[in-house]
Amino acid sequence: MNKEIPYKIYLEENELPTQWYNVRADMKNKPAPILNPATLKPITIDELSPIFCTELAKQELDETTPYFDIPQEIRDFYKMYRPSPLVRAYCLEKKLGTPAHIYYKFEGNNTSGSHKLNSAIAQAYYAKQQGLKGVTTETGAGQWGTALSMACAYFDLDCQVYMVKVSYEQKPFRREVMRTYGAKVTPSPSMTTEVGKRINAEHPGTTGSLGCAISEAVEAATTQEGYRYVLGSVLSQVLLHQTVIGLETKAALDKYGIKADMIIGCAGGGSNLGGLISPFAGEMLRGEADYEIIAVEPASCPSLTRGKYAYDFCDTGKICPLAKMYTLGSNFIPSANHAGGLRYHGMSSIVSQLYEDGYVKARSVEQTEVFKAAEMFAKVEGILPAPESSHAIKVAIDEALKCKETGETKNIVFGLTGTGYFDMVAYQKYNDGEMSDYIPTDEEIAKSLATLPNV
Amino acid sequence: MNKEIPYKIYLEENELPTQWYNVRADMKNKPAPILNPATLKPITIDELSPIFCTELAKQELDETTPYFDIPQEIRDFYKMYRPSPLVRAYCLEKKLGTPAHIYYKFEGNNTSGSHKLNSAIAQAYYAKQQGLKGVTTETGAGQWGTALSMACAYFDLDCQVYMVKVSYEQKPFRREVMRTYGAKVTPSPSMTTEVGKRINAEHPGTTGSLGCAISEAVEAATTQEGYRYVLGSVLSQVLLHQTVIGLETKAALDKYGIKADMIIGCAGGGSNLGGLISPFAGEMLRGEADYEIIAVEPASCPSLTRGKYAYDFCDTGKICPLAKMYTLGSNFIPSANHAGGLRYHGMSSIVSQLYEDGYVKARSVEQTEVFKAAEMFAKVEGILPAPESSHAIKVAIDEALKCKETGETKNIVFGLTGTGYFDMVAYQKYNDGEMSDYIPTDEEIAKSLATLPNV
Repeated sequence: MNKEIPYKIYLEENELPTQWYNVRADMKNKPAPILNPATLKPITIDELSPIFCTELAKQELDETTPYFDIPQEIRDFYKMYRPSPLVRAYCLEKKLGTPAHIYYKFEGNNTSGSHKLNSAIAQAYYAKQQGLKGVTTETGAGQWGTALSMACAYFDLDCQVYMVKVSYEQKPFRREVMRTYGAKVTPSPSMTTEVGKRINAEHPGTTGSLGCAISEAVEAATTQEGYRYVLGSVLSQVLLHQTVIGLETKAALDKYGIKADMIIGCAGGGSNLGGLISPFAGEMLRGEADYEIIAVEPASCPSLTRGKYAYDFCDTGKICPLAKMYTLGSNFIPSANHAGGLRYHGMSSIVSQLYEDGYVKARSVEQTEVFKAAEMFAKVEGILPAPESSHAIKVAIDEALKCKETGETKNIVFGLTGTGYFDMVAYQKYNDGEMSDYIPTDEEIAKSLATLPNV
Repeated sequence: MNKEIPYKIYLEENELPTQWYNVRADMKNKPAPILNPATLKPITIDELSPIFCTELAKQELDETTPYFDIPQEIRDFYKMYRPSPLVRAYCLEKKLGTPAHIYYKFEGNNTSGSHKLNSAIAQAYYAKQQGLKGVTTETGAGQWGTALSMACAYFDLDCQVYMVKVSYEQKPFRREVMRTYGAKVTPSPSMTTEVGKRINAEHPGTTGSLGCAISEAVEAATTQEGYRYVLGSVLSQVLLHQTVIGLETKAALDKYGIKADMIIGCAGGGSNLGGLISPFAGEMLRGEADYEIIAVEPASCPSLTRGKYAYDFCDTGKICPLAKMYTLGSNFIPSANHAGGLRYHGMSSIVSQLYEDGYVKARSVEQTEVFKAAEMFAKVEGILPAPESSHAIKVAIDEALKCKETGETKNIVFGLTGTGYFDMVAYQKYNDGEMSDYIPTDEEIAKSLATLPNV
């Protein structure tokens, strides 16, 4: 059997999923409802609709429909880069000398360089369907902004990206990819919004933050006719779209009669992890199968392993709805020395509830170890991974080495969410031996958690 | 039939070619022999072997063996990123409103970002087989250096890359990818070689050139025990390895019963074009089929369309063997305003002979038009193409628009050699409207051609 598994398992085009899977439908303990920040009551579709596209607002709140059809236009776009390969990491296994079989679902073979495109194209589609002129969003490092730019170019939608000023200046290449796709990229805080002007006045010379960029993007969406705001992670709608990753992974494994023992993914806002694990968690929730699911987070931003399960604001600016989630507090800002993404203070409410109920385990890892794993992986598997994805690589390697000790032939599946081509500043730091680790103290976390809203 | 062709045609792993195809075996007019620069007589394997790996020197000189087995170790590496997809450009066709069917063979889905890896892994393999410690090479923009670094990391070979100083400083990210793969990257001219010291003394503050970097790499190879020099294009051995592109393309077309009418590729040194077209040119040479084959070169470096078919040095430093080829003269240096690669003064001797004999046509295009085509392609097909590859896109679009006028349903196949993720400086110029065109004058070309060696 082993010999027959190719290096890359490609599904046929007609095996591309036709529906996204809404894992909430199978959860006995549903995620707590998101709350209107003004009333602190569960938010309604009417309240969400001025900010989000109506169809997306519906998806956000729907806890019972198990499957959503993927519209044909989105499937056609998916066909340009999906089904993505499930790769058997033969070379990594050989390098490690492990009896474990390692598989990774590779989402990096598209110009956005990551899984973000899976939801970007869906969100752009619904905006187009609603007859909107365009969408606004924020971006930090630029992966999400790039994906959204591509999606908007495809549907001929205007795309306005507020990019954290420090990234805008330090990551000019990401910015140029977005511009090539026709997006308008504005360094945030800008002088084009009221909130931007206010922040610039209060903090002259500030290089911006994600929280500030969100505020500007939301203001831009709500003050221009025919615009809505879109977001790249955390939300349940995003996780829903990302289930295309898990559904393909499961289909590819089933095709070759492989039963995963362990599923590993990196976790920032939780949408890629949630998308990867949903079909597997669904089987667990329905009592049909058992898997060991591990969410890997950076030690510098450990929302699952050291955060609190509580209602919190989704944004630093506290203008977005509140969600119940594992959080470090919306004031928590990870150390600037932390290289990759995965900097979000909270965690998708779906993933949080699955973790709370024991379906998902969590592990935190330090960044120099992550880059060491990334370097080894790049050399033997030929793919330079994104720092975010490398968190999953690190734990997959650890688990494969445990199998080497115990002699177990486990099937380890992990999500390789993207490539690191636009992260070479971080790799340079690592190559030069100048990378260091940062772990927040208990006091720092307690201080941030003390500011949780009283809900 | 049309409807059944998927967006991406992936061959199965067991359909990966087992042999490279040596088109010279089918050529009645063989390429003229390469000459020893010291004696001006056809060079022998013994004379080549101190510089090149022995097996590669044999491949270089072999004009009669039609097929070379691809060693299993190389095929195993190929499996990590090959077979590469042949993509039906449905979205581009729709955008253009053309009845033509457009296909592209996409070589960019690997970390080197281009087809260069196909030959890098072969050259590293033969170096390892010969028991060498390492290899040396030069790189300009860094695509070849990246590919070779990956290949050397895989086979645990030392890799020394002399990178043109101006690129070393302006393209730090390419440099870091190479370093991550363990390569030693030295800005050229350096103070580590005699020739480098001499050039630095004669031209203080020089930012280097490819010719100088070649000289340093050759010196480094011949003065260190257990090293050889390797090259990423132009040579017949490189073209041989790149036939994996054309063989897969043909197999994919055959699988779906598609007969190509036109095959288009960009041409710098000629190895990707030669590799793509070899199996098709072979059919033409054997009188079995007919195709329209178009080599696309930049108007700023027009070796086929405005050069001379003559013996010339392969390098600016005039230390490498002479080849008969279409050339602009080894002194020709394309304008610095030319953004992409495709800057080589000459053309693979195989491609040159096929062009001389009428099997290949050539067309030159200006760079702003090329970037315009690249932008359109990126938006509808979702892949940000390399500037080099975009030369082929430009002509494919032109030909598809001709079909729109005539109503012909031609099958147009082109080579998309790589991605543009490390070329964002050029895209920025284009996005900012600061890109201009350069076409050398007749006088400039005549002046450079006047320096051709008297052979």
